[in-house]
Order: sequence, then C-alpha cells, then structure tokens
Amino acid sequence: MKLLEDKIITDGKIGEGDVLKVDGFLNHCMDVAFLSKLGEEFYRLYKDCGVTKILTIEASGIGIACLTAQYFNVPMVFAKKTKTVNIFSDVYTSRVESFTHKRVYDIIVSKEYLRPEDRVLIIDDFLAQGSALQGLISLVNDAGAEVVGAGIVIEKAFQPGGDLIRKGMGVRVESLARIAHMSCKDGITFVD
Amino acid sequence: MKLLEDKIITDGKIGEGDVLKVDGFLNHCMDVAFLSKLGEEFYRLYKDCGVTKILTIEASGIGIACLTAQYFNVPMVFAKKTKTVNIFSDVYTSRVESFTHKRVYDIIVSKEYLRPEDRVLIIDDFLAQGSALQGLISLVNDAGAEVVGAGIVIEKAFQPGGDLIRKGMGVRVESLARIAHMSCKDGITFVD
Repeated sequence: MKLLEDKIITDGKIGEGDVLKVDGFLNHCMDVAFLSKLGEEFYRLYKDCGVTKILTIEASGIGIACLTAQYFNVPMVFAKKTKTVNIFSDVYTSRVESFTHKRVYDIIVSKEYLRPEDRVLIIDDFLAQGSALQGLISLVNDAGAEVVGAGIVIEKAFQPGGDLIRKGMGVRVESLARIAHMSCKDGITFVD
Repeated sequence: MKLLEDKIITDGKIGEGDVLKVDGFLNHCMDVAFLSKLGEEFYRLYKDCGVTKILTIEASGIGIACLTAQYFNVPMVFAKKTKTVNIFSDVYTSRVESFTHKRVYDIIVSKEYLRPEDRVLIIDDFLAQGSALQGLISLVNDAGAEVVGAGIVIEKAFQPGGDLIRKGMGVRVESLARIAHMSCKDGITFVD
C-alpha cells in the first residue's frame, strides 16, 4: 500500500539494533485518521469473507483492530496477556514468545467471545517471527472457529513469520507494507 | 448517559468480590459501534476546550480513546506500562497502583508525543481509586501541557478516585455512568 510505505519512509525511524520505530503514527502516538484508512484497506481485502469478528492482541493491535472493526461492523476481541481477576469465565489460552520484549507469555480469550460459528479476521500491527499470530490462530482453532485470514500493517518480510503462516499453516496473510530490508545505514526497502 | 446505564444493566455482570464485568462490550470484546457513541458524547462535552491530544493508558483504554479521537480529529497517545526496546527517546514516567491486578507499575510516554503546547483530554474505561488517572495527569503536568479534563466510561462513585481528582486536584472529570452501589445481591444503582 503506497500510502503506508510513504508514511513509513517519512515518519519511521530506524533505531539501535536496526529496530523500526513507527510509534509516531502506529503504536504509541496513533494517527487515528490515517490508521482508519488502513482499516478501510483491510475491509477491501476481506469484505467478501463473511467476517463475524476481529481478533487482535493487546496492546498495540487494539487501535488498528478497532478502526478496522468499524468497517466490518462486527465486534473486536483482544487477547489479553495476563489473567486478570475480571475474567472469571473459562478461557482459551496459548503461548507467545516476544522477541522484542525478550520474554514468553500466555495469552487468553474468554470462551464467551470466540464461538464455533465465528469467522475471524486477525489484525495486528507487526509480523516478524510470527509467534503472536500463531498464538492467535491457535486460540481461534481451539474455539472451533475459522480464521479467514490475517491483516498486518507492517511485515518484516526478511524474517520467517510470513512464510511460516502462509505456507506452513495455509493461512491467508495480507500485509499492507512488506519490508525487504532495513538498516540505519541503507534505510528501508520494500518487497515489490 | 442513559444509553450506557441501560447497557451496563443489560450486559454487565457482577462477579465474585463484587467486581463489575463489562467485558462483553467494553474491555475484552468491544462493541465498536456502541463505544463510538460514547466517543461522540465525550466530544459533545469537551468540543469547545481546544483539545489537541487524547491520552489514555494501555490496554483497555485504547479502544475507547481511539474512537473518541476520531471525533476530535486529533492524535491519540497511550501510556505504556513497561519500557520496551522500541522506545529509545526520552520518556515521562509516573507510578500507578492497580487494585484490580494487585500490583504497582510504571507508566511512560515518550517526550516527543506530549508537548508543552498540548491541551490534553484523558480518556479511560474505569475510574475507581483514581491511581491510573492521577498517573496520567502527572505525565501531562511533567510535559508542561494542560489537562482540559478527563472522560471516563464508568466511575465507581462509591470509591474515592472521583472526589480525589475533582476536588483534590481541581480537574474536570466527566463520567458517562456513575455507579452509586453494586453487589451480587442487590444489583447496580447509579448516581442520579
């Protein structure tokens, strides 16, 4: 998506350890009007798939998932990273490894909010190693529901997550920007 | 707000320890169309205050803050609960005590996203003890910016947070539903 690639070039920064920093519009300070356009693009891509629910993971997926759910006119469910005392019904659970935060954690979704009849579109801000996305797919499978696909804002296509989920798991993944290479020295190039 | 009070009565559940569970529409499975109406109400209340930024705290504030920011047409910033390697600029920091999760944590906002010229509307899903709201106000003050007020979805008016912030700190707080009393036995009553 040209609009997003331009925004990444203009507003994105590459920090120490070749980390891409897009928190000026995506995952700390959110440019809500801009993100809504990304939601509209996810709608264009998946509008014929009978989506009944949007699923994401806290925290930085929530904004873009909310704005996407507006187009589909369906509820948005976010998987939580820790079990809180406010959830007292049964939950589906899965394990996720965060390479950014260098830790492993459990994610949960209340069984009330993922039903066997659901057709689920998973939305997230980043895809790199694919651990979070695999965890979310596993929750949907546990519920006996169907994953219609995933909508990702930025995919680090030089990392294995995308292939793992498209080819390994046979799940449709649509990423609005796919980074082929990035470094402080050479900047960012996208997959054609 | 009658619409919200009705929704709490219809969809809310009171769990063990008299915890109010509204995760069917507010903070786990989000009824995005409904929450957008709450955002519109926050806009009605604060539209003449020159708001330049919406501030909230991860995770459950992000959805309602995003939908509110759409009406104001301003960016939404969420305070993060842990320092991640993706934030390498300087941050404002504050300490928050969660009574629900029974722990103390630091919240941070990058200095880039709260500027002295900002007029900030703070949005959150719940107000009870007031610790999160105090922490967010402290971040805004540290930035030299102005808090125009806070917009809260549900205030537990029988807990001290509201008074502490309205009277103690002189900050305008608008809560769309104010619960006077709730228990498994007697249900929920609202402040008139």
